[in-house]
Amino acid sequence: MAYAVLSTWRFSLEGNRLALQALKEGKPGFEAALTGVENVEDNPSFRSVGCGGRPDNTGHVRLDGGFMDGNTLHFGAVASLEGFASPSKIACALSKGDYNNFLVGEGAAAWAKAHGFKERDNLTEESRKQYEEQGSAQLEKLSAWENHDTVCFIVLDDSGICVSTSTSGLFMKEAGRVGDTPLAGSGFYADSRYGAAAATGTGEEIIKGALSYAAVMYMRLGFSPQEAAEKAVVELHDELVRRNGHCHDMALIVMDMQGNYGIGTNCEFPFVYGSDKETARLFLSRFVNHQVIIEEA
Amino acid sequence: MAYAVLSTWRFSLEGNRLALQALKEGKPGFEAALTGVENVEDNPSFRSVGCGGRPDNTGHVRLDGGFMDGNTLHFGAVASLEGFASPSKIACALSKGDYNNFLVGEGAAAWAKAHGFKERDNLTEESRKQYEEQGSAQLEKLSAWENHDTVCFIVLDDSGICVSTSTSGLFMKEAGRVGDTPLAGSGFYADSRYGAAAATGTGEEIIKGALSYAAVMYMRLGFSPQEAAEKAVVELHDELVRRNGHCHDMALIVMDMQGNYGIGTNCEFPFVYGSDKETARLFLSRFVNHQVIIEEA
Repeated sequence: MAYAVLSTWRFSLEGNRLALQALKEGKPGFEAALTGVENVEDNPSFRSVGCGGRPDNTGHVRLDGGFMDGNTLHFGAVASLEGFASPSKIACALSKGDYNNFLVGEGAAAWAKAHGFKERDNLTEESRKQYEEQGSAQLEKLSAWENHDTVCFIVLDDSGICVSTSTSGLFMKEAGRVGDTPLAGSGFYADSRYGAAAATGTGEEIIKGALSYAAVMYMRLGFSPQEAAEKAVVELHDELVRRNGHCHDMALIVMDMQGNYGIGTNCEFPFVYGSDKETARLFLSRFVNHQVIIEEA
Repeated sequence: MAYAVLSTWRFSLEGNRLALQALKEGKPGFEAALTGVENVEDNPSFRSVGCGGRPDNTGHVRLDGGFMDGNTLHFGAVASLEGFASPSKIACALSKGDYNNFLVGEGAAAWAKAHGFKERDNLTEESRKQYEEQGSAQLEKLSAWENHDTVCFIVLDDSGICVSTSTSGLFMKEAGRVGDTPLAGSGFYADSRYGAAAATGTGEEIIKGALSYAAVMYMRLGFSPQEAAEKAVVELHDELVRRNGHCHDMALIVMDMQGNYGIGTNCEFPFVYGSDKETARLFLSRFVNHQVIIEEA
């Protein structure tokens, strides 16, 4: 059986290994993806996802997550969800059925509770301390760079491709703020004809270019995953610089149906790739002279 | 001065006239778009938008709205917002600035209140009666057809193109459910290099194809507005039928930077178009033999 797993940031290394292991054992792709994402959600030392996530400007940790099945184009998502362990798992569960696939706020929480999902207060002592000690300074200058690390897993197996995402969003975000992470098309997209993509970085920029959909569209038009990822990010980056004078950080992981991957980024961005042929390894991508350079980290 | 206004459904006829009038008087495009949308939001007899909107499965009217400025690619959006008169106006206000452009639920309400937006209980006597008398039957068979009518206005003027959207969402939707209406890329997209698009219909289907972004991408690739609109809708329709055995109703309005419009639909869909050269008129589009037929209504 052939399979491959592509995931964002250094903190996804262990989860990527676990996802590969799950695939090796014959588990379905969605389960492997959730295994990877949950490993990050459950670790309180990873501060931008799940437990120990970064609080919003009212001191609450509210989480976003998304899931898409490239075979059916069905997606599920939650946003601004408080009090649950795994937004990615709830998002995946919401992807069944034709309606009500994206729930937010108290409605999402009520649904998750009614369906027995694990509850958890994600505001750790560390999260609370960060809010109290650094919150006001952060509000002065909302910087995405140090705290926009969304975990995304793209999983390919013989049956198709899927993608799972999870984040606590920007530190000191406005209460109720939603970024790209739960948005099919922007934060993630999967179509088993062509491949999948998922984004991390400043959600508000990523949404402006429907970045994940754009990359999958470029693969459809014949570009390789690396060309598609780079083209999607660089075009949006250049347009935003031209129009608005600047573009905040963003990065995009892309995989085609042969397990080839591509990275688009306008910043320093570590990612992890593994497959049935090679163990999970950490790579570093950088944006140098308007091109993406990738090396093993 | 050249300008054009394209809007969804029969109920937008009066608003389209008002938007054209605003443009004639030299008002900016975003103001014309909001004028059109607010005319629908404020009318309690239009049951799928604003005042008198359709309740969710807990009997609350929660509204979604979006806005995008094709010049800057900046967007604003609210979802699951209760107690305010104009989600479209709040969405437009949220489109300023680099962060926190999309707010949901109580966070969105707190922001709107803090910024002085007009409050309104949108649950009219009619809405309440519909909930009590038809709610259970609707839950048995959630049908989007009769109650998915999102109002969308695309406004072109000499300075660029913009789009505004507003809806109460599906009748008896799960509390907290978000459709395509507040989602840039799916429910609306505008890029003043190529044009703009906006969608109405079953949001969950529209999101699966990032329909508005797809149509603008097709214009970028050289297709006319009519070709782009039809291609985006028919491709998604066919894929969903092939994969899932069915596709729910959806319709898409598209306009290029010369004021030419196009309609994609897989159902019967009335729309309104007017410009500096012709007064606002109502047209009917239908999906016949896999093609869109348009005639004056």
